[in-house]
Amino acid sequence: MAKDMSDLGGYREGFALPRAFYTDPAIYERDITCYWNQSWIWVGHISQIPNPGDYFLFDYGPESIIIVRTQSGEVRAHLNVCRHRGSRVCTQGEGNTRLFVCPYHAWSFDLEGSLRGGRAMGPDFDPGEWGLFPAHLRIFEGLIFISTAETPPPIDAGLEQLKPLAAPFDLSNLKVAHEASYPVPANWKLAVENYMECYHCAPSHKEYARSHTLKDPRDVTALDPALKERSRAIGLSTETVQAGGATAVAPGADIYWRRYPLFEGYDTGSQTGKGVAPLLGTLTGYDGGATDLGVGALNNLLIYADHVVGYRFVPRGLQETDIQVVWYVRGNAVEGRDYDREALTWLWHVTSLDDERIIRHNQAGVNSHHFQPGPLSEMEWGIDGFYRGYLAFLQR
Amino acid sequence: MAKDMSDLGGYREGFALPRAFYTDPAIYERDITCYWNQSWIWVGHISQIPNPGDYFLFDYGPESIIIVRTQSGEVRAHLNVCRHRGSRVCTQGEGNTRLFVCPYHAWSFDLEGSLRGGRAMGPDFDPGEWGLFPAHLRIFEGLIFISTAETPPPIDAGLEQLKPLAAPFDLSNLKVAHEASYPVPANWKLAVENYMECYHCAPSHKEYARSHTLKDPRDVTALDPALKERSRAIGLSTETVQAGGATAVAPGADIYWRRYPLFEGYDTGSQTGKGVAPLLGTLTGYDGGATDLGVGALNNLLIYADHVVGYRFVPRGLQETDIQVVWYVRGNAVEGRDYDREALTWLWHVTSLDDERIIRHNQAGVNSHHFQPGPLSEMEWGIDGFYRGYLAFLQR
Amino acid sequence: MAKDMSDLGGYREGFALPRAFYTDPAIYERDITCYWNQSWIWVGHISQIPNPGDYFLFDYGPESIIIVRTQSGEVRAHLNVCRHRGSRVCTQGEGNTRLFVCPYHAWSFDLEGSLRGGRAMGPDFDPGEWGLFPAHLRIFEGLIFISTAETPPPIDAGLEQLKPLAAPFDLSNLKVAHEASYPVPANWKLAVENYMECYHCAPSHKEYARSHTLKDPRDVTALDPALKERSRAIGLSTETVQAGGATAVAPGADIYWRRYPLFEGYDTGSQTGKGVAPLLGTLTGYDGGATDLGVGALNNLLIYADHVVGYRFVPRGLQETDIQVVWYVRGNAVEGRDYDREALTWLWHVTSLDDERIIRHNQAGVNSHHFQPGPLSEMEWGIDGFYRGYLAFLQR
Repeated sequence: MAKDMSDLGGYREGFALPRAFYTDPAIYERDITCYWNQSWIWVGHISQIPNPGDYFLFDYGPESIIIVRTQSGEVRAHLNVCRHRGSRVCTQGEGNTRLFVCPYHAWSFDLEGSLRGGRAMGPDFDPGEWGLFPAHLRIFEGLIFISTAETPPPIDAGLEQLKPLAAPFDLSNLKVAHEASYPVPANWKLAVENYMECYHCAPSHKEYARSHTLKDPRDVTALDPALKERSRAIGLSTETVQAGGATAVAPGADIYWRRYPLFEGYDTGSQTGKGVAPLLGTLTGYDGGATDLGVGALNNLLIYADHVVGYRFVPRGLQETDIQVVWYVRGNAVEGRDYDREALTWLWHVTSLDDERIIRHNQAGVNSHHFQPGPLSEMEWGIDGFYRGYLAFLQR
Repeated sequence: MAKDMSDLGGYREGFALPRAFYTDPAIYERDITCYWNQSWIWVGHISQIPNPGDYFLFDYGPESIIIVRTQSGEVRAHLNVCRHRGSRVCTQGEGNTRLFVCPYHAWSFDLEGSLRGGRAMGPDFDPGEWGLFPAHLRIFEGLIFISTAETPPPIDAGLEQLKPLAAPFDLSNLKVAHEASYPVPANWKLAVENYMECYHCAPSHKEYARSHTLKDPRDVTALDPALKERSRAIGLSTETVQAGGATAVAPGADIYWRRYPLFEGYDTGSQTGKGVAPLLGTLTGYDGGATDLGVGALNNLLIYADHVVGYRFVPRGLQETDIQVVWYVRGNAVEGRDYDREALTWLWHVTSLDDERIIRHNQAGVNSHHFQPGPLSEMEWGIDGFYRGYLAFLQR
Repeated sequence: MAKDMSDLGGYREGFALPRAFYTDPAIYERDITCYWNQSWIWVGHISQIPNPGDYFLFDYGPESIIIVRTQSGEVRAHLNVCRHRGSRVCTQGEGNTRLFVCPYHAWSFDLEGSLRGGRAMGPDFDPGEWGLFPAHLRIFEGLIFISTAETPPPIDAGLEQLKPLAAPFDLSNLKVAHEASYPVPANWKLAVENYMECYHCAPSHKEYARSHTLKDPRDVTALDPALKERSRAIGLSTETVQAGGATAVAPGADIYWRRYPLFEGYDTGSQTGKGVAPLLGTLTGYDGGATDLGVGALNNLLIYADHVVGYRFVPRGLQETDIQVVWYVRGNAVEGRDYDREALTWLWHVTSLDDERIIRHNQAGVNSHHFQPGPLSEMEWGIDGFYRGYLAFLQR
């Protein structure tokens, strides 16, 4: 991995990244080792592992992480790589267990990741040295974040700052209503960039643009004062936290929290505009707003009054990415009675299909040796912020 | 792309290219940037875009070109890459339009490639600087050639020289009767080499060898005088133009035009030997000949008295190539009445299937680390010419 | 192939190989050129080509070898690469022929590999210089080994030493009863390592572990004296030859021959423990043992009293390997009468399915950038031996 990134391949601030960032296998390898393996990644929610021994896996690029609730009730994250000869230790996507037994030579690890025994390893072998590598873990309002970095980006202060703003939604009291994955033949950065700007919303997302104002900053400005009033009325803070890009406390520690208005007639992100699930937390009604929550550049959630949509752009290869979408509703909501899965997921399903298409065409064009990065619009400031953090990691 | 080609990897004149030219991803990348993107490429025929707004795409390697007839009736070629963030601007293979609207952020380009507008790009943005990149374009007797080079190979004088020879065929008055693509898991150069020589015709192409004399130079010589007489009788010039390889005015500017005899009983390249479509242009009958037309090394057409077969070897990846074949007939010919598609395409369909097989086995063998390029036969002079031009580009 | 292997990427003796050995395309290319193309490879048995003109192909990585019996009855091996432009000369997996005629330009080679003729190659062409490249060939008790090295590892003395030990089995009098291939998405070295140790046998191979003692060295030791007695009783030598790894006469010249006990009740490697085919050679009964035969690190056979199972781990790509298994029985055995194919192949079919799974999970884990090679157990000494020979070749 001797790629010299000192010149950043001709990158100019205010412009898209040069072609090689989307086409060069060596840069993709750096993306994993220098960026993803150094960042915080939102991997799930505590409601997925309520009981001791409950676990699930989260995979990205060539990496695999075990997230498990231990016997004492703590949540832990371990690298899913046997310390002996490297086999995946856990091969089921989720389940409940007392031990992780490597399928190859039966090295067995308890839920804390400690190696039990060590058959035929000789007298000098100390099992204490050969436990599963731990990953860092943070739980914010029930949302689980992991990092495989030695020293992950400092997000604790930022999360602390978000806590009172998030409190009325009671995000720790959610359940997964639906998960979907939209594979797109494109580099993961094109998918992140796509999420980072709403310059494309008007031309590309008919349904979204009908209900959400972000497609035009003037609409946001015009409708914001009324939203603020309605938000306060249902018990929400109207504070904005915008510490990303140049204003992040450190690369990868971006924190973003902002509620913006939907158009009149829209209580939530649904086809009809009407609610699609029970109100979250302590909310007393609909305010017709949506909150963008961002932690680092990789972790993005959209919080309506009655549901939450999480977005993740998981690299599978240089030009293979899974757009993973998770729909959350109030923890005690019951499908069929309290929400209809079809109605709940409609908006971000059709919007994700749009995104898959436009990201795919983006990669096809960027593959041209004649591609030259063009200037970003005023509405694409989020991309600049992403690049700033990303390039800081790559140049380390 | 730091590959040093100064030693050409051990290439010796008169021999096949060394293994790396068919197996090394870095050389494949040079093939696209230094050869394909610097050459003239035959992409189609004006009959495909008769009206203003008519367009079609031509893709090769990672590149995509829009060929369009403008409102004023001119034909233009643009790179199919948005100047903003690089998306493909046009995603339909062919159609009619007034504007090319990028599917991502709706940057809109008129048929001349100029950017219209530039939403939210700030006050200093000059749309005039952000039009689609143009590609060079030449139309020779209705055949469309493009080049994405800054300075394409000088072919104008050569084409001028061909004009009177081609005139009786009235090639601008053709229509596409059939198109087919034969994907072969081999480097594109193996497919070009295959077309460049008829040393393989006798052993590999039973049907072709029965009708065409190129498989044996002695047959060509013996039957040529009688052909010349017959050609003159139907109104054809018998002149030959052979300015290729060492005799090309510049690398990539090779021009080749030569009519050679079919065997007795064959009026045209068909299964029965009988005509399969109306006579082209001003021809007054069949002469039992076929004209090889070559422009550069990439563009090869075979002109019978009643139809034209074009051959293209389009790279898709290091060892993925599409053998594209286009059958043209007289512009006013009607399928079913004037020609039968099955009969028209039979010969070059079966011959292409043969070629797919032998090119595939060629690549499989060349992949061996024990492969050592052997000596070319006297009948493979065309390959030497191809190498000369190709290597001149790669060493630039 | 400028990869500098002088530091071996951090390899420590007694530990697994570092990640790059399983993930780096440049090392894979060295694996083929520096290891496989320098080693002896067991490719088949003389019973496959009893008559003059009989041949079969053996392919690995990008290489292809023709093994043929000549008119004079000798067995020869040729590289399956035309000396002209590199096509595969022979495209059928097996057959009988008098000449190998290249499918491209019909260059024709006799069974000795000599070029016949040379159409249109000019007056100075000497066919004697353009015969197929020969591969080295050794036949040990009917088993055919080839090497494409200039100077293959010196195995003759070792094979000579094995001859008297192998004699009672009369291995030259075998026939192929069944062949199977188990493709696994993993580097070939993970498959070889898997075969090299029985540390995984107890946890991974329920059926095998029930019958074979190698899963626990203490069982081997306990049951060995009784086996030796039984072996002598049926006419077998009880000598062991163990000249591998550090004790090999040269890298790639490892020789291994050792008979070890099955558990009580098992005459042979079958589901019931009962015999599944006629006794081999001059054996007078079952001794309840199995002989591990190894030549180099790539060639492994397991010899029961009534059948032989050969194992080969054939690279197809960086992380694509075919586990090839061949079951041999006495030459005159007749399927249906003397053996049941299902019963014969049961054990090593289920065991190979297990191996496919665990090798696959091993590769998945090793792909993690967080993988760090762990310490080998006492039961994995065979892997150390493999590494020693392998790394000696790579550093040459």
